[in-house]
Amino acid sequence: GNLDLAAALTRPLHAADLADLIQLLEPEERLRLVAALGPDMDPDTFSYLDETVRDELLEALGPERAGAIVAELETDDAVDIIEELDEEEQREILERLPMPERIAVEEQLAYPEDSAGRLMQREFVAVPEYWLVGQTIDYMRTTPGLPDEFYDIFIVDPRMRPVGGVPVSRVLRSRRSVPIRELKLKELRLVPATMDQEEVAFLFRQYGLVSAPVVDADGRLIGVITVDDVVDVIQEEAEDDILKLGGVTETDVFARPLETVKRRAPWLAVNLVTAILASLVIAMFEEAIAKLVALAVLMPIVASMGGNAATQTLTVAVRSLAVRELTPANAARVIVKELLVGAINGLVFLAVGMVVALVWFGDPTLALVFGLAMLINLATAAFAGVVVPLVFHRLGLDPAVASGVFVTTVTDVVGFFAFLGLAGYFLL
Amino acid sequence: GNLDLAAALTRPLHAADLADLIQLLEPEERLRLVAALGPDMDPDTFSYLDETVRDELLEALGPERAGAIVAELETDDAVDIIEELDEEEQREILERLPMPERIAVEEQLAYPEDSAGRLMQREFVAVPEYWLVGQTIDYMRTTPGLPDEFYDIFIVDPRMRPVGGVPVSRVLRSRRSVPIRELKLKELRLVPATMDQEEVAFLFRQYGLVSAPVVDADGRLIGVITVDDVVDVIQEEAEDDILKLGGVTETDVFARPLETVKRRAPWLAVNLVTAILASLVIAMFEEAIAKLVALAVLMPIVASMGGNAATQTLTVAVRSLAVRELTPANAARVIVKELLVGAINGLVFLAVGMVVALVWFGDPTLALVFGLAMLINLATAAFAGVVVPLVFHRLGLDPAVASGVFVTTVTDVVGFFAFLGLAGYFLL
Repeated sequence: GNLDLAAALTRPLHAADLADLIQLLEPEERLRLVAALGPDMDPDTFSYLDETVRDELLEALGPERAGAIVAELETDDAVDIIEELDEEEQREILERLPMPERIAVEEQLAYPEDSAGRLMQREFVAVPEYWLVGQTIDYMRTTPGLPDEFYDIFIVDPRMRPVGGVPVSRVLRSRRSVPIRELKLKELRLVPATMDQEEVAFLFRQYGLVSAPVVDADGRLIGVITVDDVVDVIQEEAEDDILKLGGVTETDVFARPLETVKRRAPWLAVNLVTAILASLVIAMFEEAIAKLVALAVLMPIVASMGGNAATQTLTVAVRSLAVRELTPANAARVIVKELLVGAINGLVFLAVGMVVALVWFGDPTLALVFGLAMLINLATAAFAGVVVPLVFHRLGLDPAVASGVFVTTVTDVVGFFAFLGLAGYFLL
Repeated sequence: GNLDLAAALTRPLHAADLADLIQLLEPEERLRLVAALGPDMDPDTFSYLDETVRDELLEALGPERAGAIVAELETDDAVDIIEELDEEEQREILERLPMPERIAVEEQLAYPEDSAGRLMQREFVAVPEYWLVGQTIDYMRTTPGLPDEFYDIFIVDPRMRPVGGVPVSRVLRSRRSVPIRELKLKELRLVPATMDQEEVAFLFRQYGLVSAPVVDADGRLIGVITVDDVVDVIQEEAEDDILKLGGVTETDVFARPLETVKRRAPWLAVNLVTAILASLVIAMFEEAIAKLVALAVLMPIVASMGGNAATQTLTVAVRSLAVRELTPANAARVIVKELLVGAINGLVFLAVGMVVALVWFGDPTLALVFGLAMLINLATAAFAGVVVPLVFHRLGLDPAVASGVFVTTVTDVVGFFAFLGLAGYFLL
């Protein structure tokens, strides 16, 4: 009863909203609602679902039903879903697709993960150079199998290589006797099928594209990428950076607790090792601490300030690298600038720190040592915060992943060493 | 000589690429290149420049030249540039715009910052319901002043209220005798001019929109937002979260060092206060540390593990709130889940921690205390990491800004208190 009512209420929803609703349910409820909705549920709903939720649902529905759902999707959406499954599940679903659809999906799966080839649609409108606007319009009116909606028409040479792009609105606004090539945009940006999606997103953002032709190794038009696919990529890539900087691999709100532990614990283990490294530095100065416990009280402040300053610099560096505002061309200048910022911040907090320590412990030498350690660590933080991600980037590694631990280990070690070392020298 | 060559070499570049190039130059070189390029520099270049660089350049060029540049831009791009200037500069430039342009810009500036009204273009194509495809095409072919490129045509009622949207490609593919209303999309999503741009971006992503009509308080069509504007918003919003989580207000690669210090130092000052708070906890246990220096060695590990676990949870929570995967509807479930994750991680690192401490110091009671403190702090981290951003969100505050300090202060304080407190009780 209740379930039928729920199904009736959710039926008029847009697929994206229905997907959101399903995600908010308990895992068992999700399956029951999908079962109640039955085959008249919009298969697009699955495209909008979070990956974790989708995989669970598809598995629970069984390969028969899953195959039927995937078969109803556009090729690029089908690829999107299938690429996330494990090989066994992929095979089971692919086997159940009608042959033409199956070939299309398998061809796209042959392109590398996160490449333009995986992202593109295979349906597009291409016309020869010598056509007139009238011919083009007649072709579009009478040819079945063209995409339902499109934003650009591509002009191709006899070997199917794109030579120009024409926005649909320009075609509409021109007389039938105008040659189509006169309407083409000044610039045409080709996307090789093997181009990484991050690169594709950069092209779209940089040049404000709405769609772009995808070409194979011979330069022949094989598909088109539209801006709505790219919006998802931009979202994903930015999200990726956020999560990696936070030490997480994916948004895992919908993952089960044990899975989440499996994903997060390794990162905590790495952090344990680096924390132990910093503690080994403290252990070197056990005697000094035993003589002057104030050192134990103040030392976490030095480390924490360094860690925070480093995180600030690192965040800016990682982001600037991602949006290409930081490049080899201005790296040296940015490093010098960050060092300068670190030094100025260091002098500010040398002063503030000295006042704090003096008021707290009334010992001018201790205050001076505390202030100097702060200066040293803030300068170190600035340097490490920008150089480490640059080096990671140069080595072809993702600067967002491990820079964080790396840099804060540096500021912990340097912070403890500078403070306790100076204290040992001047105070004891 | 050199400068003329540089100008000649950069002239064929796309405005976006020229902007990137200008940004990579030293501040003085930037001005010289722009001066050498003279008035035939594409004014769009300024739209692509980083805000800091742009403001400096416009100021250096003077209001006369700046006004001329802004006058050549589309209204939405002009608004984009002017809204970032201070009032004095805004006035100077607005005074130099031709009257119709000036009125258009001022009208858009009247909408709240970051609203749909600021984001929209004022040029769009609207036709009455009873028109046929043929009439629509003839209208578009013969009417000047329509936008150069557009993706949807809007159908309006006699009071100018939008009642449907028609993708341009559908018009192209239909016979002249078809009534335009038969082509309209099932759904039309209206954007009120006062809607926040974050909300607008959500609509576009959620429903895969390419353009959307903007309406005034009476529901009349006054503009259109296209997906390329939204791509920038999505990029900005995600970047905002990244930077705030890192304790930075803006990407400041192009800002001068002193400006950068002014932006970053306040955050470090906040961190100093919270670090002192944590150190006050340590100071409560000075005696215990004096007796057993191993406590000083191990205590930063407990705090650091808590901080990292909290950052993981917090990052996921902030992101999930932003993309609306975490809502009041599933908040309780997510909190329980994170607590469970924290408890399991806590048990894992209780065990690992005990082994580490035992090997290092050979004291089983110390090892047990260390392990227990780890468990307590990891569970606390999980709880604070998800509850703090939820509370911020509920209070209408941005969870990305201050959650970080807040949460790590909690884990520092609890970490030190649990470890030193348990140690004082069991060991001394």
